[in-house]
Amino acid sequence: MLIVQKYGGSSVAGAARMSNAAQRVAETRRTGCGLVVVLSAQGDTTDDLIAKALEINPKPPKRELDMLLSTGEQQSVALMSMAVHRLGFNAISLNAMQVGMTSSSTYGNARIKHINTERINAELERNNIVFVTGFQGVNRSNDITTLGRGGSDTTAVALAAALNADLCEIYTDVDGIFTADPRIVPTARKINAISYDEMLELASLGAKVLHNRSVELAKKYNVNLVVRSSLTRNEGTLIKEEVKLEKTLVSGLALDKDVARISVVGIKDEPGMAFKLFSILANEKICVDIILQSIGRQNTKDITFTVERSLLDDTIKIIERNKDILLYDHLSFGDQIAKLSVVGAGMLNNPGVASIMFEALFDAGVNIHMISTSEIKISVLIDERSADKAINYVHDKFADYFNA
Amino acid sequence: MLIVQKYGGSSVAGAARMSNAAQRVAETRRTGCGLVVVLSAQGDTTDDLIAKALEINPKPPKRELDMLLSTGEQQSVALMSMAVHRLGFNAISLNAMQVGMTSSSTYGNARIKHINTERINAELERNNIVFVTGFQGVNRSNDITTLGRGGSDTTAVALAAALNADLCEIYTDVDGIFTADPRIVPTARKINAISYDEMLELASLGAKVLHNRSVELAKKYNVNLVVRSSLTRNEGTLIKEEVKLEKTLVSGLALDKDVARISVVGIKDEPGMAFKLFSILANEKICVDIILQSIGRQNTKDITFTVERSLLDDTIKIIERNKDILLYDHLSFGDQIAKLSVVGAGMLNNPGVASIMFEALFDAGVNIHMISTSEIKISVLIDERSADKAINYVHDKFADYFNA
Repeated sequence: MLIVQKYGGSSVAGAARMSNAAQRVAETRRTGCGLVVVLSAQGDTTDDLIAKALEINPKPPKRELDMLLSTGEQQSVALMSMAVHRLGFNAISLNAMQVGMTSSSTYGNARIKHINTERINAELERNNIVFVTGFQGVNRSNDITTLGRGGSDTTAVALAAALNADLCEIYTDVDGIFTADPRIVPTARKINAISYDEMLELASLGAKVLHNRSVELAKKYNVNLVVRSSLTRNEGTLIKEEVKLEKTLVSGLALDKDVARISVVGIKDEPGMAFKLFSILANEKICVDIILQSIGRQNTKDITFTVERSLLDDTIKIIERNKDILLYDHLSFGDQIAKLSVVGAGMLNNPGVASIMFEALFDAGVNIHMISTSEIKISVLIDERSADKAINYVHDKFADYFNA
Repeated sequence: MLIVQKYGGSSVAGAARMSNAAQRVAETRRTGCGLVVVLSAQGDTTDDLIAKALEINPKPPKRELDMLLSTGEQQSVALMSMAVHRLGFNAISLNAMQVGMTSSSTYGNARIKHINTERINAELERNNIVFVTGFQGVNRSNDITTLGRGGSDTTAVALAAALNADLCEIYTDVDGIFTADPRIVPTARKINAISYDEMLELASLGAKVLHNRSVELAKKYNVNLVVRSSLTRNEGTLIKEEVKLEKTLVSGLALDKDVARISVVGIKDEPGMAFKLFSILANEKICVDIILQSIGRQNTKDITFTVERSLLDDTIKIIERNKDILLYDHLSFGDQIAKLSVVGAGMLNNPGVASIMFEALFDAGVNIHMISTSEIKISVLIDERSADKAINYVHDKFADYFNA
């Protein structure tokens, strides 16, 4: 049995936490499993290095920044290997060059292209626990790249896929995936099992425990993924192909407060106007989330969409700059809103989910501005000030339906 | 024209000093030279990393320690490359793996075996200033090694040799090599030029500005070496094959206070006893410096030698353990002594040097315990408490003979 584990930055920050993580690694090794362990940089190391770089050069070349940042993970793997040696185990640390972790060339946001398993397998055969730097790759110029946000999770899943591992365990500082954010919903419970697709919806909706890229990769290569805490003995959340449980209607709730709404009011009702609007925004790298189109007055229509709040000003400017092309009447916008979503594969064949959600919001006295649905989720836009109350009402209403 | 420069840890410690070093690099580049720059880790980085390692594991595996320590230089080269980019120059940073800096396998004290110049030359052709991590190599297992003390100087000289550079400049926080340690001898002056051999004698005697390995390598490949300050515009000290100056009798003085003396008194006067004594010590990794043998009483002889003070206790124990083999009468020892040396190629053909030195010591009222000479140096052992006074008297006496 081969297991790939990944410990995040907070799990290896400082000697005490690193010793704790080393104990966890040792426990797994004692069961006789082959073990490959991916590590992030310790605690705030990456942020500290970025600050150092910006002090030297406010616009550091990305290649050099990756060269700098990659040292954080290398320090982690070397130190953890030492910690595990102290416990009496054979271990070796490898960086992306030593592994042969080939990536695309985009510094700061590279994609893993191929993993050479030769060196890792040789070390496993020598009974070594193999520590591998997360978050980094080597491009075809033999230069170091970093993988961008959630990169170490992606490294772990990619390694699990390449090595054909039986399990990929992501250790973090929470017990797993919850039915809602426990800081906002006190009655939130840990989910025992969830499908890749549901996890993808939850992640993109702000659950933020696992980065989407790693879940997509796990889905693509059918890697059994477990998210669990390095600080407790709890079992965590298993993410796999399909979770079949009769009563599971809903997996979890996500609340995203980083939302701004823009309505383009009175666009001429002719073909191609939505295409024009969103291709202009795409060219300017504006990522749009929910889109709704409604019929306006006198042969016009209104298009409403949401973006991250930080993009609101830019988005408005871009649309105003293109008024001649888009031929709209006026813009309206707001950023005091939130997006509340219910995710569950179970709702596919159960039209009742939406009405349960709307009933809960009605009970809470919360007004719905927009509704957007996909096969396995329902999102509503509501006032931000009502958001915490709303998610608690909805969570209570679905209490009996969670697989948690 | 191709120049290899090396900046030590203190020259790149913190953003301000790094900017200063970047300015020096830029100045050299503006003259049109090709430029390869070797860097050490910033300031106390290496010591801090060692402390971190020891906190995790009091006996860290050396391979993992090297994996950890090598990150210090990688951070330096990445940051310096950013600093130089900010000044408008093209630059790229490379670590030992990217360069192809092959070393022996001894972790913590590896030797450079071969440098692949392909990548560096390609970057020079692209008009890049090339920053290379000092102090590290890659062994044949594709694992990272470190070169031990003075490693970055060695990297710079080895690169200068491999690239056939016209000059190798070692930047440090002092103005060059001095006729004596200026903290002890206020009248000490900077040496303008000195031969490899003289430098080797001075370095091994405690001058400690340049590590011996780098000077040996410079001598072997005839690399013109300059030691100079990154903080001033002074010209520094040139170290080369031979320095021909009529009046140069003496290059400099060295004072080593890390000395302990052991006398093995009353060894049986038969062949092979000295061999036995020093082969026993060599087997126990005890490095012996000066050795003197004198005739004792009644067919015995006395052997006196010096070691570093930290080795005194161990050395005594080893000799006592072997009393049956060495057949001596008793041991005497002391550690309140110092070694004062006069170095100069000029003394080869000038027997007067020794007598000038002895006269100065007589003037100072300093008693000489032992005298040891080589072709280009004279060392005396004296009481440590008289050492500072003695070196000042000797320095004054040779004032007119220095090439400084």
